[in-house]
Amino acid sequence: MTRTQPSPERPDQRRTFQRSVDTHEDGRWTRRDDAIVVEEPLEIHLAWPGGGRRLGATMRTPGNDDELAAGLLYAEGIVHDPAEIRGIAHEPLPGEAQEFNSVRVELAKAPRVDWSQLARPFLMSSACGVCGRATTDYLRATNPPAMQAASPRITPTMLASLPDRVREAQKVFEATGGLHATAFFDPAGRPWISREDVGRHNAFDKAVGRAFLDGKVPLHDAVALVSGRASYELVQKAVRAGVPVLAAVGAPSSLAIDVAAEFGVTLVGFLRGNRFNVYTGRERVRS
Amino acid sequence: MTRTQPSPERPDQRRTFQRSVDTHEDGRWTRRDDAIVVEEPLEIHLAWPGGGRRLGATMRTPGNDDELAAGLLYAEGIVHDPAEIRGIAHEPLPGEAQEFNSVRVELAKAPRVDWSQLARPFLMSSACGVCGRATTDYLRATNPPAMQAASPRITPTMLASLPDRVREAQKVFEATGGLHATAFFDPAGRPWISREDVGRHNAFDKAVGRAFLDGKVPLHDAVALVSGRASYELVQKAVRAGVPVLAAVGAPSSLAIDVAAEFGVTLVGFLRGNRFNVYTGRERVRS
Repeated sequence: MTRTQPSPERPDQRRTFQRSVDTHEDGRWTRRDDAIVVEEPLEIHLAWPGGGRRLGATMRTPGNDDELAAGLLYAEGIVHDPAEIRGIAHEPLPGEAQEFNSVRVELAKAPRVDWSQLARPFLMSSACGVCGRATTDYLRATNPPAMQAASPRITPTMLASLPDRVREAQKVFEATGGLHATAFFDPAGRPWISREDVGRHNAFDKAVGRAFLDGKVPLHDAVALVSGRASYELVQKAVRAGVPVLAAVGAPSSLAIDVAAEFGVTLVGFLRGNRFNVYTGRERVRS
Repeated sequence: MTRTQPSPERPDQRRTFQRSVDTHEDGRWTRRDDAIVVEEPLEIHLAWPGGGRRLGATMRTPGNDDELAAGLLYAEGIVHDPAEIRGIAHEPLPGEAQEFNSVRVELAKAPRVDWSQLARPFLMSSACGVCGRATTDYLRATNPPAMQAASPRITPTMLASLPDRVREAQKVFEATGGLHATAFFDPAGRPWISREDVGRHNAFDKAVGRAFLDGKVPLHDAVALVSGRASYELVQKAVRAGVPVLAAVGAPSSLAIDVAAEFGVTLVGFLRGNRFNVYTGRERVRS
């Protein structure tokens, strides 16, 4: 194997960045800088003597991209021995500003793979996987309902009460510790729909699905609480469903914040006890 | 819209089941029944007048499957109004014992969708998405390295020490609270590779990728610790990489336990403080 470079931390491959955040704690607002974890897509392209193909894209935190590509190829059974990989390098795509969001893997020979049988659910869309910009272009193309500016208005007290109200409803999580939850509330904090699933996105899809089947989408008055972190994909689903306020018990990613800002979603994170952070759409939270 | 049935909890659609678990706490083993969350694939098929297609499969916890299907179709922009859905029903697949792992969505008309542009990463493989049995058949077909029975041997004290050792290495998580980690240790508990990512599977892929590029796969002596829950997909990746011991800070799913048992992986969950559960492969843990 021609050894690949050992993944130096490049200035363009930041894993965190600093961002100004509004924190509400014990009845008071403060503003301070907070470290946000970076979430960006990585495209993986394969090349071999006489051929090649796009494997797909995955959302990831930049850094060690050669290892991520090698690990994915091995997990999928596309390579079996390190000698089959001649090299892995970042490769800027034509017209792309973000030169570190695509890698090219040089294989020694064409892999013997049934490409329709890969287990990993890659982001298959060509429009979706290239960069943050294209990601939001894709979301815009689905023509999501417009958010109503500054509506609904909610209070810090109501936000702080949500986790306890979800725990009451989250009976299976209590029993197993193994489920994610999504709950929808009205602006006064009254619970409306609560769904659980081993997959965080499934819990959100189930709650939206119930509302959709009942003719309640877009959800212009809903406040959503999710049990884990706020990823790009959850914010995307909130935008699609017209949910104006998304609160997460855990941390948001960089792309989650970007998409929430662009589409007018109020994004709340680290909602625990008597404390939470507001990342975007602060105008909906009455102080 | 012809209203769909409101998702009753069927006996075949259990969301949890009871299982005997070995718990180690403060130096003592006990055995008791524990509730495990069910993880199974759901196939979604679309039908419309004069046509239809398989949409894909997703791992999920059974229950509210009609809502999950509707929520996914809406999120993807395949349907826009509830009137476009005539009905959603479970549909046993030919030759399948698990009659509630497939739903058929009747659409009023053929959707206008570019199927190559869906954002959601579905499980695309036809072999992978049908049932737990087919899922492990697929994994077996990738010809994973055989696990060496009862090797390595590890101690409860070593297992209990791992979370602290990961936290030392997990600097970005400390800063942001937003990253998942995978760390590999040797049987004595010495740290070897530690990787972080906003995606739990990416962190595992990066760690395996590093080992693979260094010619260290299969990882017959590695003990892996993951920061979150133990899903089917993480156990699958451990099997592929030959990792004999997988320990998770969180809960395992039903399918994670099944796959670990079938492929000889020692699966540890709820590894916190001086306590952990062993679900499979107890013979590797010296008491």
